[in-house]
Amino acid sequence: MQNEEYLRYKNLVDEHILYFLPDIDHKSITLTEAMTYSLKAGGKMLRSVLLLAACDFCGGDEKTALPYACAIEYIHTYSLIHDDLPAMDNDDLRRGMPTNHKVFGEAMAILAGDGLLTSAFEAMNKDMLLYFDNVDLLKRRVRAAYEISKGAGCRGMIAGQVADVEAENKQCTREILDYIHLNKTAALIKAAVRAGAYLGGCDKKMLEDLDAYAENIGLAFQIVDDILDVSGSEAELGKRVGSDEANQKATYPCRYGLEESKKKANELTENAKHALADYYDNAEFFIKLADELASRIK
Amino acid sequence: MQNEEYLRYKNLVDEHILYFLPDIDHKSITLTEAMTYSLKAGGKMLRSVLLLAACDFCGGDEKTALPYACAIEYIHTYSLIHDDLPAMDNDDLRRGMPTNHKVFGEAMAILAGDGLLTSAFEAMNKDMLLYFDNVDLLKRRVRAAYEISKGAGCRGMIAGQVADVEAENKQCTREILDYIHLNKTAALIKAAVRAGAYLGGCDKKMLEDLDAYAENIGLAFQIVDDILDVSGSEAELGKRVGSDEANQKATYPCRYGLEESKKKANELTENAKHALADYYDNAEFFIKLADELASRIK
Repeated sequence: MQNEEYLRYKNLVDEHILYFLPDIDHKSITLTEAMTYSLKAGGKMLRSVLLLAACDFCGGDEKTALPYACAIEYIHTYSLIHDDLPAMDNDDLRRGMPTNHKVFGEAMAILAGDGLLTSAFEAMNKDMLLYFDNVDLLKRRVRAAYEISKGAGCRGMIAGQVADVEAENKQCTREILDYIHLNKTAALIKAAVRAGAYLGGCDKKMLEDLDAYAENIGLAFQIVDDILDVSGSEAELGKRVGSDEANQKATYPCRYGLEESKKKANELTENAKHALADYYDNAEFFIKLADELASRIK
Repeated sequence: MQNEEYLRYKNLVDEHILYFLPDIDHKSITLTEAMTYSLKAGGKMLRSVLLLAACDFCGGDEKTALPYACAIEYIHTYSLIHDDLPAMDNDDLRRGMPTNHKVFGEAMAILAGDGLLTSAFEAMNKDMLLYFDNVDLLKRRVRAAYEISKGAGCRGMIAGQVADVEAENKQCTREILDYIHLNKTAALIKAAVRAGAYLGGCDKKMLEDLDAYAENIGLAFQIVDDILDVSGSEAELGKRVGSDEANQKATYPCRYGLEESKKKANELTENAKHALADYYDNAEFFIKLADELASRIK
């Protein structure tokens, strides 16, 4: 993601990513270090960028959306820390660096994940307190936080993680595979866009169109990631490749092969673009982004 | 805790404890089972009872506080599930039953904890949406959720867990010991009471007095628990006794001996009672509860 607009949003998030964490005192310094380590590990910040862009798109002020953008990044980061644990995917490398538990130990990695997840809600709730004099803006924030909690929760990301764990070493159906992708990855990406849309003051149609866009790029994104796990290099990916096959993970390439998976990713990308391009003339950022995400496998 | 009023509150929570969880579909049935297993494992429900009682005390309608009462129980339960994991305290028994990871495996226990924590915020945020037409009640809810997020977070419960992990096998100072107790246990108990107070429409003095009460019973509660770990039986406690000493945990009895610890617990209990008895004539429930919590070591 090299386009200027993406980098502008990403820089905004990078600059504020530690700002919305609670002030932790020196007695919990290791906790701060463990949380910061993974937050600063150089991720794409896709979810937070999407949140800011959706807020902008709907006419809001992106800066006021920063607590929610950072919150969703805390949630995404916690999910990676927990997902990498020995009891889960047992990964040693993430974004080209040793995983959290490899550096801080398992106990601290569990707590750093818990800390990031809780901090996300603390940051959003704290922000709401600033809008007690503007009820319209307060309500937008309550809706945004609800979207994020749902996307991260047991009908969203966690449901996907559970299904992913349970599908390991099994021949899984197309239905389960779609369920995993929809929940594990697309749910939080949809939540980011929906939260941003609410914060920006969207109308119903905008919300629906952004939702359709997000679901399609979310699904495409996971398929592309899984394709790279098969065909990419460790340097490109920043993590061990081939681990899905080793873990007998339920993925598109494992089940349908590379060619079919590429076709599916491209189809989803086109759907995403149409969801916005057909109705709006200010959707350039989103359209370019969909192409860039898909181009990782070209 | 045998008094009628306590049981009335506890029954209310018991009846609703699953009600505020998101509707999880059948594909994540194991997640539901794992979460439900620990929620229904027969805990005291102290934090949720305190939340309801504080709401009542301040003149609110306890029934409308139920989503927050259940949310704080979700948070407490997640903290126990994660705390029992092999990488943390490595406990096999909790409330007289095998711990979550012993039944569902480590991966599912981690996810069940994550699921409960996220569900807590999802439940509270969802409840807020019901109060968009009553801004005063909406604001009370935002404040309550913020208190709970702070108490559960990196300046609260998680800070205490981290300090607890870091203090293992070390001779720790009085300062660190107090820090652990204040955060690991008292913070969420304080959050429960403060959230209930806000929901009930407290004034500033009520909030301060309830806060002082909660901090004192919170600290007393942890000391009493640690005393029981030394002098209690497994049947009384529902978990392995002597594990603190085996794990070289930082506790009052390990550092100051049993007699001194009992004295301290009684002193804190008296402080708690005075915080309310000196100013209110409707604080009977709280005063009786402080005595009952302390009487576990008599």
